[in-house]
Amino acid sequence: MTKDTNIPSWKKKLQLIVNHRYFSRIIIFLIMFNAVIVGLETYPSIYEGNSMLFFRIDVTLLWIFSIEILLRLFASPNIKDFFKSSWNWFDILIVSAGHIFAGAHFVTVLRILRVLRVFRAISVIPSLRRLVDALLMTIPALGNIMLLMSIIFYIFAVTGTMLFREVAPEYFGSLELSLLTLFQVVTLESWASEVMRPIFEQLPWSWVYFVAFVLVGTFVIFNLFIGVIVNNVEKTESADEEEENTHKEVVELRQEVRELKALIENQFNQKDT
Amino acid sequence: MTKDTNIPSWKKKLQLIVNHRYFSRIIIFLIMFNAVIVGLETYPSIYEGNSMLFFRIDVTLLWIFSIEILLRLFASPNIKDFFKSSWNWFDILIVSAGHIFAGAHFVTVLRILRVLRVFRAISVIPSLRRLVDALLMTIPALGNIMLLMSIIFYIFAVTGTMLFREVAPEYFGSLELSLLTLFQVVTLESWASEVMRPIFEQLPWSWVYFVAFVLVGTFVIFNLFIGVIVNNVEKTESADEEEENTHKEVVELRQEVRELKALIENQFNQKDT
Amino acid sequence: MTKDTNIPSWKKKLQLIVNHRYFSRIIIFLIMFNAVIVGLETYPSIYEGNSMLFFRIDVTLLWIFSIEILLRLFASPNIKDFFKSSWNWFDILIVSAGHIFAGAHFVTVLRILRVLRVFRAISVIPSLRRLVDALLMTIPALGNIMLLMSIIFYIFAVTGTMLFREVAPEYFGSLELSLLTLFQVVTLESWASEVMRPIFEQLPWSWVYFVAFVLVGTFVIFNLFIGVIVNNVEKTESADEEEENTHKEVVELRQEVRELKALIENQFNQKDT
Amino acid sequence: MTKDTNIPSWKKKLQLIVNHRYFSRIIIFLIMFNAVIVGLETYPSIYEGNSMLFFRIDVTLLWIFSIEILLRLFASPNIKDFFKSSWNWFDILIVSAGHIFAGAHFVTVLRILRVLRVFRAISVIPSLRRLVDALLMTIPALGNIMLLMSIIFYIFAVTGTMLFREVAPEYFGSLELSLLTLFQVVTLESWASEVMRPIFEQLPWSWVYFVAFVLVGTFVIFNLFIGVIVNNVEKTESADEEEENTHKEVVELRQEVRELKALIENQFNQKDT
Repeated sequence: MTKDTNIPSWKKKLQLIVNHRYFSRIIIFLIMFNAVIVGLETYPSIYEGNSMLFFRIDVTLLWIFSIEILLRLFASPNIKDFFKSSWNWFDILIVSAGHIFAGAHFVTVLRILRVLRVFRAISVIPSLRRLVDALLMTIPALGNIMLLMSIIFYIFAVTGTMLFREVAPEYFGSLELSLLTLFQVVTLESWASEVMRPIFEQLPWSWVYFVAFVLVGTFVIFNLFIGVIVNNVEKTESADEEEENTHKEVVELRQEVRELKALIENQFNQKDT
Repeated sequence: MTKDTNIPSWKKKLQLIVNHRYFSRIIIFLIMFNAVIVGLETYPSIYEGNSMLFFRIDVTLLWIFSIEILLRLFASPNIKDFFKSSWNWFDILIVSAGHIFAGAHFVTVLRILRVLRVFRAISVIPSLRRLVDALLMTIPALGNIMLLMSIIFYIFAVTGTMLFREVAPEYFGSLELSLLTLFQVVTLESWASEVMRPIFEQLPWSWVYFVAFVLVGTFVIFNLFIGVIVNNVEKTESADEEEENTHKEVVELRQEVRELKALIENQFNQKDT
Repeated sequence: MTKDTNIPSWKKKLQLIVNHRYFSRIIIFLIMFNAVIVGLETYPSIYEGNSMLFFRIDVTLLWIFSIEILLRLFASPNIKDFFKSSWNWFDILIVSAGHIFAGAHFVTVLRILRVLRVFRAISVIPSLRRLVDALLMTIPALGNIMLLMSIIFYIFAVTGTMLFREVAPEYFGSLELSLLTLFQVVTLESWASEVMRPIFEQLPWSWVYFVAFVLVGTFVIFNLFIGVIVNNVEKTESADEEEENTHKEVVELRQEVRELKALIENQFNQKDT
Repeated sequence: MTKDTNIPSWKKKLQLIVNHRYFSRIIIFLIMFNAVIVGLETYPSIYEGNSMLFFRIDVTLLWIFSIEILLRLFASPNIKDFFKSSWNWFDILIVSAGHIFAGAHFVTVLRILRVLRVFRAISVIPSLRRLVDALLMTIPALGNIMLLMSIIFYIFAVTGTMLFREVAPEYFGSLELSLLTLFQVVTLESWASEVMRPIFEQLPWSWVYFVAFVLVGTFVIFNLFIGVIVNNVEKTESADEEEENTHKEVVELRQEVRELKALIENQFNQKDT
């Protein structure tokens, strides 16, 4: 950074372009335009007659985004730094997937990729990027509680499949179905009226299973939430480190006062003698 | 304010009236009366025979409220200040809309305007006004997370429309319907029993879409809530600024002790020589 | 209290009885016994043959509780103090209602009164009484936000009745029904699948009403919750008043150091001259 | 511990084995393997042909886990300490139950025991064990609020059974059914659409019961949550005890400054005379 002379002149020019405030504004505008286009495509009345136009706009946008990423890549002072950012990987992945599947006939996959490009709004707007970074950073701290949740889910799913496979095949017919049903139950959505009550009519002891899972599941999820809240409050308060410094200052100050006292006493004693 | 002599005598009288405690009490009473009237109007048995009476009461109340606002306008020491308050704009809007639509034949619009006048209770009772001001003030701080939520909603709505348009037209028939359905899903209302399960029967992979949206949606909303909580706790704690002052005081105090020490040492050294 | 000599000897004896640890234990046991009895009464197979026995047990318990309250009343050093406690009023109300309705033929009312006597467990167990006192004490602080909630409920109920009376008479047929429906909506229970969607099919603009109410309602309720949390955290932190004292101490300490400096300077200057 | 000489050599060898990092890794791997096996057993297509293989794997795993626990028991320096840990009891219970029911014909019970062995993952992974310990430790602090909740549940259940037994036998047919229904209502699941509305059609006053229970139930549960949050925040903050020390230091410092002042004054006064 300090040795600007080493940077080739084409790189300097590129950096001027890439860092220009209009550059990111145009990209944000194009991403919003891309969003409007994929939105309009969902209306058959609009899409039917103009499918060729939509296709061309899409190809153009894909190439513009490709060039944008290449420009940012070449403009970066160090190519390694560019690839260290997971947001850049995210950009490259989404755009290159558009090229890879371009010739393919999976129309739905292509369309979804086009929609996912709207997510680039997050990687391009810095405040959003920081917000998502902050949100994602809270996840690893919750690793243990999520592992616990997985164990609870798995045990209840296996038990549920064993117990209710015959009685409620649409909810507990297989391990996968049970896991999905338990996810529904933990959101408390129709857990009693749709899932438990029909089983309860045939197996009167089945309420134990459901009440236990609702209690354990919501308790663990609630503690997961508490963990995030306390984490956040702690972060806020760790800014209060000044307090700690105050403590040190006071301790040192007291030492100095003690020295001062000793100094005076010595001097006076010396004179008295 | 300081130069009371400049205020014309009619303004002084107006201010005496407007600031009198009975003035606002009467207005609060009339707003409550207005509330009771619009409540009674919803009972056909009461309304049928007395529609003319209700109409007259309504016109009278509208004029009283108009005069009240005019009085407050003329009594305000500075007319600019009066229009700076968004609550005054709110009052003017609600009352003037009553006049504008008075001759019109949209009975429902007129009735809703009459009901909305009950909202004036908020602008007239100071403690409620402060509460609503405080509630509204938390919104801009959440701008980023709401923008993120909009992007997530939009992407899932477009994808949902593309994927489930044919299978569940009543839920994902168009972009607007999908947005409404996603709002329902994020409140966890019948998201599985009514929305997902019928689609899931035909498209076995569709659970990915719904589980992903429920996880992402509730996670972001939950963080939005956390943001508000931490914000509030922070506000409470920012009152603890005294602590910071303590730190400064201690640092300065230590400096003074050092000076004192130097002073004594110098003096003694001076004498010894 | 200090002048025990003024207390008549029968009062002293009563106090010994009432304050004896077995007294409250027996009462707690009898309340639990009362709870078991009302529970058993709900089983027709048990109740049918023994209705007379249940009646006699009930009358006996009622008289025991009456005597207990009278004993506590006469044992209290000051009768005024006894009536100051709202828990005593609660006890008197529940027990005396049992006597008043004893001859009446409202079997259901009598039974409910018998069940409500179980609530006396709260007034008799001190830790529960303190907990409920603490819970109730958080309510007045929320007065304003509840007033705001009432205004929002009322306005939406009147509007809902006006707009959807014909379309959904079972949900919005009258002002009372609308209020009940809005309470259901604010708990997010079937707000979309049962309440909104049938109306939405006939009035496509009706989603505005429901989405607005869900957003406003949950936002206000959420802020009500935040208020309670922050209140509680504040209470916890107000114990940190020591900090404030530290600040004062440091300021005064600095003043003393300054005086010390002035003192030394003066003395030395004096000597130098 | 300090007197290693007293430990027999076979115990030392056992401790080397048990504390070896591969020991717990192998056990964790075997628990995961056990989890996969019970998962696979739920697929009839896999289980049908290989039931004998599954049975043998299961018996082998049961014996390995038995030996593991015995090894850990004999390796523990003090057998009393081993039985003090409730996690060891949990391990012994789950494994010995497998042996006890081995010969029995309750296939479902045996299978559930096999699934419950997956819970041993918690007792074997230290970070999970600590997490669950922490979660369980929050429960006793909530004892009072849970007692209160039980009283409220019981009173509402008895009342509900009395009032709605005839009208809604599937929800309030008996005391047990009422308790289950109230648990459903307190999770806000279909409380209005399925439980209240059908009763409400026949007994128009029944909304009072449900609205009261929803308000009281959610209020108490919410306060239970608040209690946990405030508890957690408090724990975090009790780490801020340094502050208190600062206060003490400042008070003592001020005392020393005062002594210093007195010292100087005395000395000068002495000299002046």
